[in-house]
Amino acid sequence: MLALAPRSFVASSLVSQLQRTSLFANLPESAVNHFAEKAQVKHAAKGQVLFIQDDEAEWFYLVQSGWVKLFRETLEGAEAVIDVVSATHFFGEHALFTADRYSYSAQVVDKTHLVLMPLSLLRYHLEKTPQMAMNLLRHTAQQRELQSREMEHLAIQTATQRIGCFLLKLCPDTTHGGAQIHLPYDKTLIAARLGMKPETFSRALAKLKSDVNLKINGSTISVASIAALVEYTCNHCSSSFPCDDNS
Amino acid sequence: MLALAPRSFVASSLVSQLQRTSLFANLPESAVNHFAEKAQVKHAAKGQVLFIQDDEAEWFYLVQSGWVKLFRETLEGAEAVIDVVSATHFFGEHALFTADRYSYSAQVVDKTHLVLMPLSLLRYHLEKTPQMAMNLLRHTAQQRELQSREMEHLAIQTATQRIGCFLLKLCPDTTHGGAQIHLPYDKTLIAARLGMKPETFSRALAKLKSDVNLKINGSTISVASIAALVEYTCNHCSSSFPCDDNS
Repeated sequence: MLALAPRSFVASSLVSQLQRTSLFANLPESAVNHFAEKAQVKHAAKGQVLFIQDDEAEWFYLVQSGWVKLFRETLEGAEAVIDVVSATHFFGEHALFTADRYSYSAQVVDKTHLVLMPLSLLRYHLEKTPQMAMNLLRHTAQQRELQSREMEHLAIQTATQRIGCFLLKLCPDTTHGGAQIHLPYDKTLIAARLGMKPETFSRALAKLKSDVNLKINGSTISVASIAALVEYTCNHCSSSFPCDDNS
Repeated sequence: MLALAPRSFVASSLVSQLQRTSLFANLPESAVNHFAEKAQVKHAAKGQVLFIQDDEAEWFYLVQSGWVKLFRETLEGAEAVIDVVSATHFFGEHALFTADRYSYSAQVVDKTHLVLMPLSLLRYHLEKTPQMAMNLLRHTAQQRELQSREMEHLAIQTATQRIGCFLLKLCPDTTHGGAQIHLPYDKTLIAARLGMKPETFSRALAKLKSDVNLKINGSTISVASIAALVEYTCNHCSSSFPCDDNS
């Protein structure tokens, strides 16, 4: 979920950007062109609300660069962060299956470039182009797998282990040596994304720092040994490192 | 997720059972007949393991009656319960999208009647019958929504509120009066299903009992006022009662 965008993603043409995503891979070129023609490219500023839960849904979104927070609010006003999505990720596409209304709200975390495409066009091609339906199926099934793994972690991992898992997703896929990583957004949002309170996050990060020898300098974290972090975290997961969630 | 089976589900013919599920609704009759011809009906005893995570996947399953636990085990041996499914629910169908291997294990909780159908046939009809792909898409998107709500609850609700939500799913869809409900399986499994330790479950249930006036007699629980339980629980959720999760 945290994969950073390939640097060249934004620079390439919209058609070739779409073709490199799971949703548009191997589609007939005429179908991809159809989406590119009807698409709107939009730059959104930090803090901008793109839509609110239960809004009538007209568009689905592809992130070109930046970060978007997907969240829900309870009647009492508490906020649950469902996901924080970055380049090459889609959101809003499942409104087709929730009575054409968004089932969460979306807000820009940091300056973001987005591609908006009509949900009506997605519905048209789902019915007309079998590969589109198979692509969305695969995409949705994989999202369900990732969510299922996160539920597993919320149920059985400690806060410290969940932070370890978050950091490993930002590390290279190797257990040799260490890594220097940059937190992609602020710690309060990371805490919310991991389903914990900011004070729990601070305490757990301090414990992780001493347990596996991290150096923390603002939003830069040096991991002395990826192998040590893997042993600390991934023994408490039903997957082993590097896992599919890293993709 | 906890909906009980219509009493007549098992008694009806296999074709009509299939046609009443979301996956087979509105399919051409020839396709439904094709699945019914290739299906195997199986009775499984309490405790029987149907498959293990990472097993090569040949079948997907429809529950006719009973309960099946879907779970994963960590390298350290801890168990995370992903779901506990009952009549009219499917499992194993997403192995088509996880390299033809099951991404969780399945074990029978209580005497269960199952329909096994070949995944190869599902793949065939996904490619051949557009309505099958749309049905599986809708089904998967809805499962994702339910999961997403559960993640929200794990992140921001107390253990007591999560038990309240579990009980409400067993109550009638009305805020008038009270209800007498029967826990569908034992409390240790309910605790695991809700992502909490048995001792946390016991403490939280005792608190809920005094906070909203429950009477507990073994696995039978009398709720004095559904409205009081709704106020206690659903104010801490982004949905309101009765919610889609009750279906």
